[in-house]
Amino acid sequence: MPTSRARPKPADRYHHGDLRAALLREGGRVLATSGPKALSLRELARALGVSHNAPYKHFANRDALLAALAAEGFRELSADSHEAAATAASGEMMLARALAYIGFALRRPAVFKLMFSHDVSGSAHAELGDAARASFFALRQAVAGGVADRAANDTALAAWAFVHGIAHLLIDGQIPEVLHAGRSPEELARDMLRAYGRPRRES
Amino acid sequence: MPTSRARPKPADRYHHGDLRAALLREGGRVLATSGPKALSLRELARALGVSHNAPYKHFANRDALLAALAAEGFRELSADSHEAAATAASGEMMLARALAYIGFALRRPAVFKLMFSHDVSGSAHAELGDAARASFFALRQAVAGGVADRAANDTALAAWAFVHGIAHLLIDGQIPEVLHAGRSPEELARDMLRAYGRPRRES
Repeated sequence: MPTSRARPKPADRYHHGDLRAALLREGGRVLATSGPKALSLRELARALGVSHNAPYKHFANRDALLAALAAEGFRELSADSHEAAATAASGEMMLARALAYIGFALRRPAVFKLMFSHDVSGSAHAELGDAARASFFALRQAVAGGVADRAANDTALAAWAFVHGIAHLLIDGQIPEVLHAGRSPEELARDMLRAYGRPRRES
Repeated sequence: MPTSRARPKPADRYHHGDLRAALLREGGRVLATSGPKALSLRELARALGVSHNAPYKHFANRDALLAALAAEGFRELSADSHEAAATAASGEMMLARALAYIGFALRRPAVFKLMFSHDVSGSAHAELGDAARASFFALRQAVAGGVADRAANDTALAAWAFVHGIAHLLIDGQIPEVLHAGRSPEELARDMLRAYGRPRRES
């Protein structure tokens, strides 16, 4: 009888951090292909070949996994925006940030929708609340420098709403082909951003 | 045996146009309270006390009813915008149109989401496609006068995206209470609209 390396029992197959990462990866895949309703910790456990209790060491429930996926989304969006602004030509930083936001939505529509849905709540999940706030603060910093008064908040909210609206219209397929006029979604977004004035602060 | 007025058979209870209107009314109620997934022609027939085949004289299927509800939404939105612009102070017409759009979304979030969802398609339902196009053309007329070139389209799209983004952030509950700073959603929307420049046409 062979005595060499036995196949590990399912629950041992992942080290602690590895299983969390694997759940987020597989959860992200299910979210992108089948939507949030299809996500179940039990199904993920089955797909990863671990015991059906193992995911609960990392996520209290399905909502906690969704919140972690949304928080990851906000961190990825922040990193994209930061990099886009850092490499933009002078005077084009806001445009670069806006295109990074819209590019993220086009590339990851399911995560984008999850981040801004009623399905997850930043007030119920600290990690998500922190990531969402950090994303807004970075935008406010870009729009209004160090200022954090009501006018600065409103200006940042307005800039957010504008790119958010473009992202929604594009990923929801609401802009008729004839208005694309042969442009890619990214090119159309750029022209829409240029067609509007810059944000201004009320004094 | 009594011979007087028999209770009409279910299928006779509505005149032709009346049943269509009743289906839209009851369908709108279900949409608002339970969402589009809860809508079924068979359930509506039951709720209205007509035979389960009667709705099919007016709507080929559930999608056709959803499309008709969305088309109604576009017509209501267009009427709201037109009235708001007609009664606005000079120089405030675009602001009035924008607030009408956002007010419609706040008042009828389920219809608003349906109008801009993948659930219904203007290309598959002529009535919806017509109503959606009329809504965009009215906006372009307001933004760019009689001009209909690519720059006019882009400026109208940008204005649409901005109010669409504000509407989405508000109805999805994405703007934290602290940033409302005691303002109603309508007041916050007005301040966000004022915080951004006017649309400009690229020449």
